Formats: sequence, structure tokens, C-alpha cells
Amino acid sequence: MTGKEMLEGLISEQTVSFISSVDENGFPNTKAMLPPCKRDGIKTFYWHTNTSSIRTKQYLKNPKACIYFCNGPAFKGVMLLGAMEVIDDMKVKKEIWKDGFTMYYPEGINDPDFILLKFTAKSGRYYGDLNTGNFEID
Amino acid sequence: MTGKEMLEGLISEQTVSFISSVDENGFPNTKAMLPPCKRDGIKTFYWHTNTSSIRTKQYLKNPKACIYFCNGPAFKGVMLLGAMEVIDDMKVKKEIWKDGFTMYYPEGINDPDFILLKFTAKSGRYYGDLNTGNFEID
Repeated sequence: MTGKEMLEGLISEQTVSFISSVDENGFPNTKAMLPPCKRDGIKTFYWHTNTSSIRTKQYLKNPKACIYFCNGPAFKGVMLLGAMEVIDDMKVKKEIWKDGFTMYYPEGINDPDFILLKFTAKSGRYYGDLNTGNFEID
Repeated sequence: MTGKEMLEGLISEQTVSFISSVDENGFPNTKAMLPPCKRDGIKTFYWHTNTSSIRTKQYLKNPKACIYFCNGPAFKGVMLLGAMEVIDDMKVKKEIWKDGFTMYYPEGINDPDFILLKFTAKSGRYYGDLNTGNFEID
């Protein structure tokens, strides 16, 4: 198993993900989210959220972001640093849409309050028993 | 039950805490930690850590911090914003020291790699089913 496969395993097992932004006063802000609704390896991650949310507004002003996944009891974790874009990509929206989403977006897939966060990782840090360390992501 | 009691209950139930800093490139950095080793209400929180750790160095340069506690399955969470100080307070060190800490600090309570992080909250945001919202902390 390569390091990338191990990290993908750790990420895909988690039922919660943590996303962090920097607010207008320079403070880090962290929030628990559902797991990403779409992911490409350890490079690209998508979440759906409300256009009106605090996080959306923060990332539009400052895309510097960190995402974090961890297995609490075992204390294995991975932090990825990169850019969070707020995007209105109908192709991805159609791909991820589920009927139950009307709970969040009552007007359906065209609800103006339905938006995507797209994170692109540049580097990361793994925390584990044996091999804690930094890595770059191509 | 007051809001403060509810928040203290949520915080004291968690087996993991998340602390965030802003790194030298302006990116938020998040890390899972054990629960705080000492706490005064929802105002003051202490963790012990390694003097040599990345987090310690970041907070010495920029004390702006966020701490986060959440009950993953129920998706109740509280984010507190404030300042993280790196302090060498022997009174608190003596209060929190346990024999097992030599696992982290082989030289014992006087190990130069044993330091405290002290977080003082100024404001917060609660995420819950009914009453998500911001609050100030006196």
C-alpha cells in the first residue's frame, strides 16, 4: 500500500470532515462538515453548502484553506492545505444531487442557495504513529 | 440548563478537541488534540504539548486561534475564537502532571520540551439543530 492509498483509506473511512478558513479579522475558523460529496484522490474535494453560509463568504474573500480528517480514537490524521473555491458547476451539481437534498435546498437543483466548495490540495501533513511528516501534492 | 451549561456539557463529553492556528503563509492549520487538560468554564482552556512542535511555533508568532468541539454523529458543535498563549507556568504544570507524561516528556516535569498552550476565548459560534448562533464571552 502506498502512502497515497493509506491516506485515501483514512479519508474515506471518516464520517465527519473539518474545513477551516481565515476570517476577516485574521482568525482561523473551523467547522465540521459531512464527508466530501465528491473526491479525486487526495487532490480535489467537493462539498455542497449554502450560498448564504458564513464559510462561503469567507472563502470568496480568502481562499486559503485547510481540510482535516482524523480517526479520533487512533489519532491518525491528515491535514491538507490548499485553495477553496466557491463554484456553481452544474455538471458536478447534477452528478452529486440526491432527492433528499431538498431538505437543504428547497427549490431543488436550481436553488440559488445551493453552491459547491471545491478544495484543491497543494501540500499536506500526516499524523500517525510511525511516520508523521509533510508531503507535497502534484 | 443555561446555554453555558449546555456548551460545557458538549465540550466535556468529547474525547478529541481541534485547535487551529494561522501559519506563516496565512493558511489555517487544524490539528486534533486530546481534550484540554484543564478548563475554566468556556473561557480558559489548557493543553500540554511539545515546546518543539509546529503548533507552538505558530502560536508564538500569531496567537489568533480557534478551538472546536463537536459531537460528530449529532452534528452539534461549538467553535470558540480567541488567543492562544504558549506559557511555561509551573503551577499549572504541577497541577496537571501525571506519571504517564514521561511518555511525552522523558525528562519529567522539568523537561524543556514540556510546555502549555493556554487559550482564552473572546467569542463563539454554536452549531445545533435549533439555535445556531454567535455569542460573546466575558
